[in-house]
Amino acid sequence: MGAHEQRLADLGLVIPPAAAPVANYVGAVRTGNLLVVSGQVCFAPDGTLVARGKLGAGVSLEQGQAAARACAVNLLAQIKTALGSLDRVRHVVRLGGFINADPAFLDTPKVMNGASDLMVAVFGEHGRHARTTIGVAVLPMDAAVEVEGLFEVA
Amino acid sequence: MGAHEQRLADLGLVIPPAAAPVANYVGAVRTGNLLVVSGQVCFAPDGTLVARGKLGAGVSLEQGQAAARACAVNLLAQIKTALGSLDRVRHVVRLGGFINADPAFLDTPKVMNGASDLMVAVFGEHGRHARTTIGVAVLPMDAAVEVEGLFEVA
Amino acid sequence: MGAHEQRLADLGLVIPPAAAPVANYVGAVRTGNLLVVSGQVCFAPDGTLVARGKLGAGVSLEQGQAAARACAVNLLAQIKTALGSLDRVRHVVRLGGFINADPAFLDTPKVMNGASDLMVAVFGEHGRHARTTIGVAVLPMDAAVEVEGLFEVA
Repeated sequence: MGAHEQRLADLGLVIPPAAAPVANYVGAVRTGNLLVVSGQVCFAPDGTLVARGKLGAGVSLEQGQAAARACAVNLLAQIKTALGSLDRVRHVVRLGGFINADPAFLDTPKVMNGASDLMVAVFGEHGRHARTTIGVAVLPMDAAVEVEGLFEVA
Repeated sequence: MGAHEQRLADLGLVIPPAAAPVANYVGAVRTGNLLVVSGQVCFAPDGTLVARGKLGAGVSLEQGQAAARACAVNLLAQIKTALGSLDRVRHVVRLGGFINADPAFLDTPKVMNGASDLMVAVFGEHGRHARTTIGVAVLPMDAAVEVEGLFEVA
Repeated sequence: MGAHEQRLADLGLVIPPAAAPVANYVGAVRTGNLLVVSGQVCFAPDGTLVARGKLGAGVSLEQGQAAARACAVNLLAQIKTALGSLDRVRHVVRLGGFINADPAFLDTPKVMNGASDLMVAVFGEHGRHARTTIGVAVLPMDAAVEVEGLFEVA
């Protein structure tokens, strides 16, 4: 277990199996020193959604943050599948956060912190990333949160 | 006609003229070995929209898939305009799919398969990409689908 | 003051202080010759929002364009903070425009022109970028517009 995966374990988290895309796309593509990871919805390790529905209309802020954190863990699963170890991540470059939100829900950045905080917990200063957060009309399977990632890798 | 354009022809498709942006942006920008292509809406070669309106509220899954496929063809048109030939594509790195969807429509990934499948039909294993699909509130001209792309190129 | 900042001054604009992220993310991350800048909402230099609410439901096209322009200025502020000078920008590669829009509002590209036009006013031909514009359900603080950017830098 690499150093970064150990930090996850210290948080009581294990990397689940990477979700297998069910179509003509893949979990991650490397180009040069960049790893582009597909948008991950908030699946728990048991394959259920951590939160389903809209922030501001049934899903609480705390549930949304847990969902964003699950998306981040799923990004790590894709990295491990693609590269073999989280230790090959040099820097988390960007996260894109998509929050399934009622049009009156204004706290999407607080939801997304669930993903950002996990990256810094795992990668330290190298986990501090550029970020865009938007509230969207709907996500696959009515997931509450989806997060995509861009990573500089060795 | 290059090998990849031939595969398109075998599918009964021709590359339409690339849509000319009507403002201070362009269809594609190259930086290093990456080609970043602007979001393409689902124009047919005759300039009409393949599907207009929302999935789940008037636009069927099949119409949405045809629209996503048209967006993918329009991405290829931008590549050909930028680089001269599809044969300079080494890999389809990422597609971003934006589905004009009713908040109750949960099958956005199936819609987006219309774009993903075309990329694999044209580029084979090099067409398998990372992907993010979200349901959005509205798209330009009420287009049903918009797709952007990132390509590794020679 | 560098040449590009002078062009901003000629437009009567000054670069405001870059917004400091309030969480575990940062305004911009450099990887290789790319600078990835976080999504910027339409703050004015005094910290108020240039426009708040939805295009097509209280926010006019002109207000939306002014908001998009403010987002673009805030992208420049992040670049200056990250690199010291706008003169290190070689090319504006991509802008992602997120318009807080009523589902019936179809002119999101015209709104986004407020950001695109500013980039060309400042960087000339090197400001012409790839672009994706979508209408979203909601943005942080109910901002009318958010824009993210990708820049090739020296």
